[in-house]
Amino acid sequence: MATVYVAGVGMTKFGRSPQTLTELCCEATSRALSDSAIQEIEALYLGVMNPEEFTGDSNIASRIAEALGLTGLPALRIETASSAGAAAFHAAFQAVASGSYRHVLVLGGEKMTHLSTSATTRILAEVIDRQERQCGATMPALAAMITERYRKRYRLSPARLERLLCRVAMKNHLNGSRNPYAQFQQAITEQTYFSSKFVSTPLRLYDCSPITDGAAAAILTSEKTDVAVSGVGQGTGPVSLRERDSFTSFRATQIAAARAYRMAGISPREIDFAEVHDAFTSFEIISTEDLGFFPAGRGGDAVEEGKTALDGPLPVNPSGGLKSRGHPVGASGVAQLVEVVRGLRGSAGAKLKREAKRALAQSTGGLGTNNFVTIVERTDSPLMKNLPLPPAPPPGRKRPAIKRTQPPALSEEGRIETFTVLYVTPDGFLPPLALALIRDRQGSLFMAQGEDVSHLKIGREVYLRQVGGRNVFTVKSHLMKVREALKKLLSRVPPLPAQRRRPGKKETP
Amino acid sequence: MATVYVAGVGMTKFGRSPQTLTELCCEATSRALSDSAIQEIEALYLGVMNPEEFTGDSNIASRIAEALGLTGLPALRIETASSAGAAAFHAAFQAVASGSYRHVLVLGGEKMTHLSTSATTRILAEVIDRQERQCGATMPALAAMITERYRKRYRLSPARLERLLCRVAMKNHLNGSRNPYAQFQQAITEQTYFSSKFVSTPLRLYDCSPITDGAAAAILTSEKTDVAVSGVGQGTGPVSLRERDSFTSFRATQIAAARAYRMAGISPREIDFAEVHDAFTSFEIISTEDLGFFPAGRGGDAVEEGKTALDGPLPVNPSGGLKSRGHPVGASGVAQLVEVVRGLRGSAGAKLKREAKRALAQSTGGLGTNNFVTIVERTDSPLMKNLPLPPAPPPGRKRPAIKRTQPPALSEEGRIETFTVLYVTPDGFLPPLALALIRDRQGSLFMAQGEDVSHLKIGREVYLRQVGGRNVFTVKSHLMKVREALKKLLSRVPPLPAQRRRPGKKETP
Repeated sequence: MATVYVAGVGMTKFGRSPQTLTELCCEATSRALSDSAIQEIEALYLGVMNPEEFTGDSNIASRIAEALGLTGLPALRIETASSAGAAAFHAAFQAVASGSYRHVLVLGGEKMTHLSTSATTRILAEVIDRQERQCGATMPALAAMITERYRKRYRLSPARLERLLCRVAMKNHLNGSRNPYAQFQQAITEQTYFSSKFVSTPLRLYDCSPITDGAAAAILTSEKTDVAVSGVGQGTGPVSLRERDSFTSFRATQIAAARAYRMAGISPREIDFAEVHDAFTSFEIISTEDLGFFPAGRGGDAVEEGKTALDGPLPVNPSGGLKSRGHPVGASGVAQLVEVVRGLRGSAGAKLKREAKRALAQSTGGLGTNNFVTIVERTDSPLMKNLPLPPAPPPGRKRPAIKRTQPPALSEEGRIETFTVLYVTPDGFLPPLALALIRDRQGSLFMAQGEDVSHLKIGREVYLRQVGGRNVFTVKSHLMKVREALKKLLSRVPPLPAQRRRPGKKETP
Repeated sequence: MATVYVAGVGMTKFGRSPQTLTELCCEATSRALSDSAIQEIEALYLGVMNPEEFTGDSNIASRIAEALGLTGLPALRIETASSAGAAAFHAAFQAVASGSYRHVLVLGGEKMTHLSTSATTRILAEVIDRQERQCGATMPALAAMITERYRKRYRLSPARLERLLCRVAMKNHLNGSRNPYAQFQQAITEQTYFSSKFVSTPLRLYDCSPITDGAAAAILTSEKTDVAVSGVGQGTGPVSLRERDSFTSFRATQIAAARAYRMAGISPREIDFAEVHDAFTSFEIISTEDLGFFPAGRGGDAVEEGKTALDGPLPVNPSGGLKSRGHPVGASGVAQLVEVVRGLRGSAGAKLKREAKRALAQSTGGLGTNNFVTIVERTDSPLMKNLPLPPAPPPGRKRPAIKRTQPPALSEEGRIETFTVLYVTPDGFLPPLALALIRDRQGSLFMAQGEDVSHLKIGREVYLRQVGGRNVFTVKSHLMKVREALKKLLSRVPPLPAQRRRPGKKETP
């Protein structure tokens, strides 16, 4: 396998822009070309999540190639939900590594801010399982349910969880304040964080990445430059929450990381800094655990102790991350690569305290369903000894096991596995909306919406029923439980003789 | 570059299906696995054109991987409009050739028939240039304009063009009648063809591929099998008609073909049979010219002479093509590969008269904007001597020339470059709708809709104006021309002294 190098990177300022998607892509490309000694391109690999619904145009690869003056050359659009940019980077890596092309332009972009928040939320929610969407689940709602479960599993008090999430938001906004390409360039205080409204408990506005326009570009080449791609890995996970084994980590990230580390021939300790997919602050904590930087359940402590700060031993999201740099969904995966390359070169907005030799980017598609890890390093690094490396043998060669099983029928009772109260609801749902993942006695999971928002707690018993095709749950109150216990007792009492002779009942002589 | 082989192929029956996109993909995969000695898969490369709008679900790669029981493994969705399946095949080829994976599943699929024809037409029309769409242009309308221009350029009478198109439709329906996977399995007569209605002149219903559900799968591997991929090539062209140099050929196909032939080290003469993208009958004729099978303008004669028939020297679309097999847009590119592999193995529905060693598949994205050519051959073929081959040097290394020019302002006059009368119009447009591409004196092209459908002819002079954001043209009648000539004459006559002294005009003493 031939080594693949990064020749140049560039991006637009992220934020609300009057430019079209095409114009944003042109600007990012111009900047990557200015940054690169290589000026000729043999193919375009484009990551965009959903231009069809965001802009009304399909056939986007041909369109962007035309605007760039590249008509004639191969142009592919790659998509894996919100990790589309990273996916395009990986496909381009394979194209160069295969010898198909020498110089390839990787572009990620998305245009989102011209639509209403409810329209954008609806489009983004299409990545979610259909049944979960029918209950009113949105991306923030599912992220919130994962966060609540994380809190419970690692025995954090609600106050402590909030403090940890606040620290992630503050760190990333502080970093973003030094990044001229970031959407938000102002540090935030604890007070700003705690006065922001809940989007979906326990996640506040400042826990969620914003809606953003932007594009980012990188030129990959087989000719040696100062930065090489030393490891790539991709992994997938179940789309629905109810198919998962774990709600407090993303298997897709773990698989992707294992592959990338094996290919690069290194361990997580050898990473100098990282850009991770903090679409929600809690996801940054989980990602740093999935990447092996910190033990499970300790990612929050690491933030609190300043380990991931700009001057810490392992800076995480020195660019400000998705939280502060912004999250034009298709662009973010490439923007992370732009930032890590700049970090290695010392040309990033937020300066690292010590020189970095090797960095990692992690991108998440959907609710952790299609994730990528990319490791890049300086070619003058003494660490870089083994390139060109053979690709890692994939850990999961699989015999396809095509499922034709019907989803289980809704049980009548269960317990709350995790929950949230959603305050920014999709069209057709009134806030506040209680949502919970319910586990029945057989172990099956069901997403359901709550009759009301009171008495929600992990482990609580609930009744389940279907109303107009939606699953609805009711938390069992003390009174209900007493009534149930009495009923059970009553059923054990033999019927009275008088009752046996009730008129209208068939009698036995 | 490592050689890439095809281990197994399979597809669903194409047509109107009660199955979901996921179910169709599962069925095609099952069949490809049954056909393959390789049962383990390391990654999924999925070609779907627009599941977001056709089905309301995004994040499709993760979804399909999950349904196939492949969760955990890398899964990418690739899209290049109606050639998405071929694009997925090419990206998968690069992934195996790079050594990233040994065994890869390529899947193409689309679910379309559950929507109304007008909704489907609208979604498909999103591949078209926005300004052209605003005038009411649809894919059949633009294909019709290309066909009309082809007729004019090669001096075919309207009757002769019709006869040639009819022959393509008859051949493909006859071939499809022998293919158990085809949507239409009945041969058609000349009478059936000529009694079918115009969709967009000169294209009738039997000139257009249908709306279809279906999926197709192929397993690519680095382990030697009976069929190898010996050449791949991709090329792009301008999205809008008005940016094109030629309306009678597709540069994107020519580029893709040149690359694929060079990589395989062969000429078009060494191809035994081909599956080409006959979304419209005229496109089959043009494609066989672009692929170098026949000289420009002679593709129609070749059909008439039976050269591309099942028993001819170069069978084209022995499977029935998109016309008769059906066209689930994302699936077609993979289905073509399924058919050529079956043809080489002698297991296709329609038997070739002589044993084939090498075959070609050509897929078109949008209006010829993103096209692919793939050459596969039997590994026992004495022709196959040079594998593994180095990849072809791309003919078009390009310095990006990012355009920021505004489109030219609408001229007041011009001439009809090509036209059509559209009978199946998009929502908001009443049939019959005249559409024409108008060239002004400066050589700029404009798409415009006609005031009425009379006097349409290539070369006719027209007036142009804007009405509510749409370009509208009026054919100059004889009377208008006489009036214009008189006006011009009049302007040369010096004004009469009486007129000079009209009251209200400033007078010179």
